[in-house]
Amino acid sequence: MTEEIVVVPGDGIGKEVVPAAVSVLEAVGDFEFVEAEAGDAVKEETGEALPEETYELAASADATLFGAAGETAADVILPLRTAVDSFVNVRPAKAYPGVDALRPETDLVFLRENTEGVYSGHEDRLSEDLSTLTRVVTTSASERLAEFACDYVEDREYDGFSVAHKANVMRETDGRFRDAVVSVAEDRGVETDEVLMDAFATRVCLDPTQFDVVVCPNLAGDVLSDLAAGLVGGLGLLPSANIGPERALFEPVHGTAPDIAGEGVANPSATIVSAAMLLEYLGYDEEGEQVRDAVEGVLADGPRTPDLGGDASTEDVTNAVLERLD
Amino acid sequence: MTEEIVVVPGDGIGKEVVPAAVSVLEAVGDFEFVEAEAGDAVKEETGEALPEETYELAASADATLFGAAGETAADVILPLRTAVDSFVNVRPAKAYPGVDALRPETDLVFLRENTEGVYSGHEDRLSEDLSTLTRVVTTSASERLAEFACDYVEDREYDGFSVAHKANVMRETDGRFRDAVVSVAEDRGVETDEVLMDAFATRVCLDPTQFDVVVCPNLAGDVLSDLAAGLVGGLGLLPSANIGPERALFEPVHGTAPDIAGEGVANPSATIVSAAMLLEYLGYDEEGEQVRDAVEGVLADGPRTPDLGGDASTEDVTNAVLERLD
Ligand SMILES: CC(C)[C@H](C(=O)O)[C@@H](O)C(=O)O
Ligand SMILES: CC(C)[C@H](C(=O)O)[C@@H](O)C(=O)O
Repeated sequence: MTEEIVVVPGDGIGKEVVPAAVSVLEAVGDFEFVEAEAGDAVKEETGEALPEETYELAASADATLFGAAGETAADVILPLRTAVDSFVNVRPAKAYPGVDALRPETDLVFLRENTEGVYSGHEDRLSEDLSTLTRVVTTSASERLAEFACDYVEDREYDGFSVAHKANVMRETDGRFRDAVVSVAEDRGVETDEVLMDAFATRVCLDPTQFDVVVCPNLAGDVLSDLAAGLVGGLGLLPSANIGPERALFEPVHGTAPDIAGEGVANPSATIVSAAMLLEYLGYDEEGEQVRDAVEGVLADGPRTPDLGGDASTEDVTNAVLERLD
Repeated sequence: MTEEIVVVPGDGIGKEVVPAAVSVLEAVGDFEFVEAEAGDAVKEETGEALPEETYELAASADATLFGAAGETAADVILPLRTAVDSFVNVRPAKAYPGVDALRPETDLVFLRENTEGVYSGHEDRLSEDLSTLTRVVTTSASERLAEFACDYVEDREYDGFSVAHKANVMRETDGRFRDAVVSVAEDRGVETDEVLMDAFATRVCLDPTQFDVVVCPNLAGDVLSDLAAGLVGGLGLLPSANIGPERALFEPVHGTAPDIAGEGVANPSATIVSAAMLLEYLGYDEEGEQVRDAVEGVLADGPRTPDLGGDASTEDVTNAVLERLD
């Protein structure tokens, strides 16, 4: 059976890098692509940043590939994560040979809780002066994440994982998160170590090789993975996967890059590697690895887009990746 | 009148670096020192990490100098901040000539909201599975911070300040924070720019000179200033000030360093620079600057403690600072 992949280019360079990744997917497998709209442009037209139809498509397809959205990013990406019932956001942050990095030895994977924390969205304006946000942490969501983390490190033969949190201040909520994650890992015989999220921020700069897989609450995962992006040379190369029990959503971590949008020079690597994660998610492990290797080869040897100091176009880079897949 | 300075060495290297800073304060001014206890050791003895007496002393002295606490850090430092009614935590993160830094061009000051956000401490265990934390943001606290920030950048002739937040997700609470801060700055004619806290984490690694003074909610300030510590070579050199309307509390950002505690080789620089901030707070601007210059001179020319690759003792470094003050 042909898997259905929903494709949501979105705004800005999303419209350039998603077609690039689609051509790579077409080269290695037999998929049915269904294109859908989301973002600033469709909001301008229809008043809705995420049309009901796009939500429904993501909620029923095997996998969705999303590009980027502008001002409406949160209105698009947060409901899309819900559409696929994604409980974990997988964010590898790895420096590539041939790409300038502050810490070229960085090779981390963040497993970010993707449903709750401060993202659960209960905010109240209690008075003229005061507003509150209710941060939610459940044992069930923490355990689900921990089971995923255990599978992840076992499959990939890591020694264990780190848990980053702020349980010295958020004793009840992050305490619950930490205890649930650590207890699942203990039951599964997976080693863990703990690190306060602020201490992580210092330590990862001083020596990123201290960490491999880092399990975090939602906002901690957001900020710490973006920090790691800074160590590997920017958001431009980071892929990500939002995994749910039955479907998943893949997206580059970068945004719409309004300064270069429409010029055909956006770097498609992060989206193509996100497509490799999509292939692996669907069980095409070999094809996923081929795509990853092809991208790494092109990053090392060129051609390169202007963000990496070259003058190649999105198409040149995509063609170079496709050639390596032949 | 002789100002009263409460001195709380705490645990670990706090017991070594605080006396070092006190000897520097004694060299430049006429103060009355009152020593008080806090931390793991006093908890062991008395059951209380922060004895009532210490709290009361901090709550009535002009200024308090705190060292570090171990496991009980949060039980000590959070109430001490309350004792001085501190509404802002001033955290300079600056690379020093002569000290290895990932980004030697880093020269940032974080002005961290110091009373609310996730630190307001309302947590509830609502069921077997679920806990919540109520994050609190008020316009009044945000405005008070913003007034301080405006004074700060005006006094020091900065162009303006950045506001780091996550108002795209925490729309009501961080939206309130951002709006209040920006509106005070507009009234005062101070320029601001906004940055999402996750984007800040990437951007500060890529180029820290993009930022000068960064105003943030409580947890954002905690994590982002620790990230900046990573860029300047670690927590070891970062001073901080918790400022209230009538009194203030000064502390190095580092912890108790159990691995070297008791050996007399702790680097006293962060605590001595915290003492320089204390001098400036009390109006001894010239003395504060002299102390700062003396520390910078010693960092550049040595002697150096082992954390900076030398083999000098805490006493050697302190004496070198004192000599430069003569
Ligand atoms: C756009 C925003 C809501 C989103 C998030 O905070 O999750 C983004 O920063 C990300 O990390 O994908
Ligand atoms: C010890 C802890 C409660 C504290 C904080 O989170 O404020 C520390 O990390 C700091 O930044 O001073």
